Amino acid sequence: MAINLKKILKQDLNVIKGLRMGVANAGIKDGASPDILVISIPEKSSVVGVFTQNQFCAAPVLIAKDNLEQKRDIRALIINSGCANAGMGQEGIDDATIVCKSLAKHLGVDQKQILPFSTGLIMSKLPVKKITDAIPNALNNLNENNWLEAAESIMTTDTAPKAYSKKINLKDRDVTITGISKGSGMIHPNMATMLSFIAVDIPISSILLKELIIEICEESFNCISVDGDTSTNDSFILMSIPSDKSFILRKNSDDYEKVKSAIFDAAIFLSQAIIRDGEGATKFITINVNGALNHKEAKKVGMAIANSPLVKTAFFASDANLGRVLSAIGNSQVKGLDLNKIDVYLNGILFAKAGAISSSFDEIKIGSEMKKDEIKLDISLGRGTHEATIWTTDLSYKYIEINSEYRT
Amino acid sequence: MAINLKKILKQDLNVIKGLRMGVANAGIKDGASPDILVISIPEKSSVVGVFTQNQFCAAPVLIAKDNLEQKRDIRALIINSGCANAGMGQEGIDDATIVCKSLAKHLGVDQKQILPFSTGLIMSKLPVKKITDAIPNALNNLNENNWLEAAESIMTTDTAPKAYSKKINLKDRDVTITGISKGSGMIHPNMATMLSFIAVDIPISSILLKELIIEICEESFNCISVDGDTSTNDSFILMSIPSDKSFILRKNSDDYEKVKSAIFDAAIFLSQAIIRDGEGATKFITINVNGALNHKEAKKVGMAIANSPLVKTAFFASDANLGRVLSAIGNSQVKGLDLNKIDVYLNGILFAKAGAISSSFDEIKIGSEMKKDEIKLDISLGRGTHEATIWTTDLSYKYIEINSEYRT
Repeated sequence: MAINLKKILKQDLNVIKGLRMGVANAGIKDGASPDILVISIPEKSSVVGVFTQNQFCAAPVLIAKDNLEQKRDIRALIINSGCANAGMGQEGIDDATIVCKSLAKHLGVDQKQILPFSTGLIMSKLPVKKITDAIPNALNNLNENNWLEAAESIMTTDTAPKAYSKKINLKDRDVTITGISKGSGMIHPNMATMLSFIAVDIPISSILLKELIIEICEESFNCISVDGDTSTNDSFILMSIPSDKSFILRKNSDDYEKVKSAIFDAAIFLSQAIIRDGEGATKFITINVNGALNHKEAKKVGMAIANSPLVKTAFFASDANLGRVLSAIGNSQVKGLDLNKIDVYLNGILFAKAGAISSSFDEIKIGSEMKKDEIKLDISLGRGTHEATIWTTDLSYKYIEINSEYRT
Repeated sequence: MAINLKKILKQDLNVIKGLRMGVANAGIKDGASPDILVISIPEKSSVVGVFTQNQFCAAPVLIAKDNLEQKRDIRALIINSGCANAGMGQEGIDDATIVCKSLAKHLGVDQKQILPFSTGLIMSKLPVKKITDAIPNALNNLNENNWLEAAESIMTTDTAPKAYSKKINLKDRDVTITGISKGSGMIHPNMATMLSFIAVDIPISSILLKELIIEICEESFNCISVDGDTSTNDSFILMSIPSDKSFILRKNSDDYEKVKSAIFDAAIFLSQAIIRDGEGATKFITINVNGALNHKEAKKVGMAIANSPLVKTAFFASDANLGRVLSAIGNSQVKGLDLNKIDVYLNGILFAKAGAISSSFDEIKIGSEMKKDEIKLDISLGRGTHEATIWTTDLSYKYIEINSEYRT
């Protein structure tokens, strides 16, 4: 059950001219729905990525990072769901390489121009033959209009596809941003556990695009957490598809700021969509920590709250047992917090003032806010001017069910 | 349901001569069972403590730390369950002070000679009058034989009392160690979330006792985790009750090593008892991480595994989805791990060799081990000679139930 997750309509997803997607059912996932996706990218596009910081990163992540570092013209992505190809050692690398080679041959490009991605079960062998057999089917239906099919093909425990699209107007041209994401468990930053692919149809240099993705990722995908577990396969890819090669987006221009802000919106929407579809989630929780000495400590406090099982179960129960929020702040490992300066609000209502229960605490009023499916916590640390916003979910019986029965 | 938690018999708990306990029902907890405990300590005992590192530490923790620092002769402990007296600001300090004053007056000692402890709901006002009214009842039943009653009175979500007792023989005398603990949720080191009181009837100087408690705590109570949440009220108190004032235990003597080892055993037993009674736990999981560069990194890796909801739910399901263990190791924030050197064993069976699934991996054999209620993971990092052992539980529906319905 996704929480207020906007239903995606195929016609709302604008094409990025030249970027084509094809899906196929390789029989890896459930046998019933497509589980491989090929994204074909036109020549001379810019493609950048950020990846999981889990040291046990999966074979496809190692290859994708390596291929991106070689600064070759990336011409296609291949994504499979149902198997993460992680924890498989050299065999995993070999398997992912075979897949890249196979696709490269079909497309007449070098294997280093392919980026592979996998999501699904860890420590399970990639069914290479199933994938290479299905690649021609995926190539046969390559189409600019396949964004929704693409979003569906990469789902694992997701209950709904996640996609975003918007057109913005610059001074003398229109720009389209369209993207998809997947993920609903093993979600925690560094980078946030998921796959996301966003494309924009304006030429942006790889150097500038790399700057953009790092800045944007830090305050979108890296600000969400379902369960504090960072996956082995997280990848966020940003692509600039040059519709008009005579144009170059210059840093710090008005147009640049508009494009950046639009990509930011896409990343925020797609990262929030992952939380709205969080495994077993019944509540969408926004945690804003302000009055911090810097962004990092604000994020640390927010994440300590987001990842506390006790805070999460209190929200699941709609129980105003909010002392658990204070306890989580105290556990954040941020040194030297002055508890006497900390105020906490729930949906705008003050419940802890100066680090202690507020004299105006109204159990009934707070209790009725706790029942809502959108919760906003505002924490003021009272020692600086920086802030961070984290998005998370509650922790329910359903999370246990999903993760206890994932393989069966 | 506690996992293989030894049933405590009153007659197995040896007295520590001079140390007397009295309990009373102040009506804070459930109305049906005692919820305050007074421990009366003879003059010239040594009393030391370690406390939660949660910055939001509770009022009684602040007072107990302060009183211990004054190095006065501590003459009594007063513990209440049902209310943590945390997140209450100055009011909490005032309330705990009234309780200490009241007990001090009854005992004819200074209020600074009393250490207060509370466990239960956070951000809830301490019912001071109920406690001061009940103190005389507790004092009326002060008795050296009340260890079991003491263990029961401090229970909150615990399903069973936790106590330990042992006699050891030194060269020319016998020594008794007896102790109790409580806790089953909000359990994570720094210091591990719980209350524990251990006494030994041999004179040990405060300085030496302080050294001992720090060393012992680091590898016992600080090595357990139920849910990664560090409570606001954790306290571990070690008391040396001088049965024979002519004797002094000297550091590094044979006797010292024997006593230290015996206190260690008590602390390990009592910390493991908390895990065996972990909220909703169906499995007792021991994680040994060896081959580390130092103890700290071994512990970090162990804790990353212990606190991964995905590892915990896999164990709950008895599902050999053990790639999650590798993923958790990768998330441990220990820099520079060489994945190719990491081996992982489950109940002695190798399942990951050199960072990847073992060629001898036998799903059926591992699956049958996963069904057991005692699980041992051995992780070899292959880069040093240090190790750490962590004890934890799985994550079940029952954990969610207990923590969703804690206040109702």
